[in-house]
Amino acid sequence: MEEQKTITSLQNPLVKKVLQLQEKSRIRKKLGLFIIEGQKELELALKRGIELETVLICEDLRDSALQIEKVSHQLIIISKLIYEKLAYRKTTEGIIAIAKVKTHALENLKFQRNNPLVLVAEAPEKPGNIGALLRTADAANLDAVLIANPKSDIYNPNIIRSSVGCVFTQQIGLGSTEEIISFLKDKKLKIYCAALSASDNYINIDYTQATAIVVGTESTGLSDTWLENADKNIIIPMQGEIDSMNVSVSAAILIFEAKRQRGF
Amino acid sequence: MEEQKTITSLQNPLVKKVLQLQEKSRIRKKLGLFIIEGQKELELALKRGIELETVLICEDLRDSALQIEKVSHQLIIISKLIYEKLAYRKTTEGIIAIAKVKTHALENLKFQRNNPLVLVAEAPEKPGNIGALLRTADAANLDAVLIANPKSDIYNPNIIRSSVGCVFTQQIGLGSTEEIISFLKDKKLKIYCAALSASDNYINIDYTQATAIVVGTESTGLSDTWLENADKNIIIPMQGEIDSMNVSVSAAILIFEAKRQRGF
Repeated sequence: MEEQKTITSLQNPLVKKVLQLQEKSRIRKKLGLFIIEGQKELELALKRGIELETVLICEDLRDSALQIEKVSHQLIIISKLIYEKLAYRKTTEGIIAIAKVKTHALENLKFQRNNPLVLVAEAPEKPGNIGALLRTADAANLDAVLIANPKSDIYNPNIIRSSVGCVFTQQIGLGSTEEIISFLKDKKLKIYCAALSASDNYINIDYTQATAIVVGTESTGLSDTWLENADKNIIIPMQGEIDSMNVSVSAAILIFEAKRQRGF
Repeated sequence: MEEQKTITSLQNPLVKKVLQLQEKSRIRKKLGLFIIEGQKELELALKRGIELETVLICEDLRDSALQIEKVSHQLIIISKLIYEKLAYRKTTEGIIAIAKVKTHALENLKFQRNNPLVLVAEAPEKPGNIGALLRTADAANLDAVLIANPKSDIYNPNIIRSSVGCVFTQQIGLGSTEEIISFLKDKKLKIYCAALSASDNYINIDYTQATAIVVGTESTGLSDTWLENADKNIIIPMQGEIDSMNVSVSAAILIFEAKRQRGF
């Protein structure tokens, strides 16, 4: 612990900084910083090796024994008024941190298994969907989640929140579609692309080898580049009137079929 | 078509009525009416036998050939200003209707198959989750979706919207947990309850018989009444750090395992 200050004014520059980091992807990128709110999320981030720059604590609301003070960072005490201005969950936990962005270069990914199972999502848009994908990836203990042509940065507070912290429990790799395809081929993963135009039923695929399951957006699906580079394009047979499943739902059906074949 | 009027004032009582029906479950219940916005949603509702009371059309925005005029109802022309006040999707389609609520009594449900597959959700809360459940149910062509102890009415505009109209493609039954359990037992459906406390892996269940898959809320799971009345309580094995999948994701994994066993 380097220093401890108290802030009570909403005009304090640090308050403005936190708000900007919450709201603006551009500022997150420029400063290489992002915001983590909540006890559990912070614990997960620290476990993942995320470094903190500043921790803001509202003592009125803290009832937790998180040993946050052990971590080297600047500790700031904030009033309840400021906490309520900054926090999404206004009445709980009393802890918000400014954290340092990690790089998510593909070359840093490490697979522990010989037959890794990874999820690739191309250009996912809605933070809620990305959060749900990360929750499923955590539950399935995937070897990595790769985001191709990302539309929003993964340190968007809505993604952190909707992932219930699972954004910190995964290996996440970011890159262009071309970069990720060449990474997967280099690592000898089979590429199975979910596509409404495909004819192979997903249950007829062998997922026990090194496998990448690839999903696109709900509105436009996967780009041709993915479909042309797939080992196989696969379909979840649908028999309804609308046949429009949520992308995180489709991904989960494919991932858990792979898990079933692998005997969990 | 009974009548045609034009409304240009935001003060018109009909404008207030639409806003109230969008916002207040209590008003929907009192009047037995709800709001449908959009071309596709209206078509699906009509196909389902939903009756319309009033159709509001913004002629500036209409470019569609929906033969809505064939349906007996009151047709009102509204200005763009009013449409933008009422519509969620402000710049598209130009059609909003006041529709009559249908009853969703369990005794009205009819199963076409000898071995129906139904989804039961107990007390689901978030409209987005309910919408995703209904989308999955549509894609899987389930025989019915039953909502036990509903927390919100299914005519909530957020549910209609997030279901992309799938709220109209399903048989939906509403009732208390006790009523639905006795309905399922009466119809001789096997009851399989998803529970984190369960020990039977969901893949070891035979879903080819008449089956109800039952899911609870993300926060508290299923009530003891369900767990005690289940033929078996089942679990999706999770191996992550958080192990908290979205309820619509969990339901989809179970439903599509059943579909796989049934050969789609």
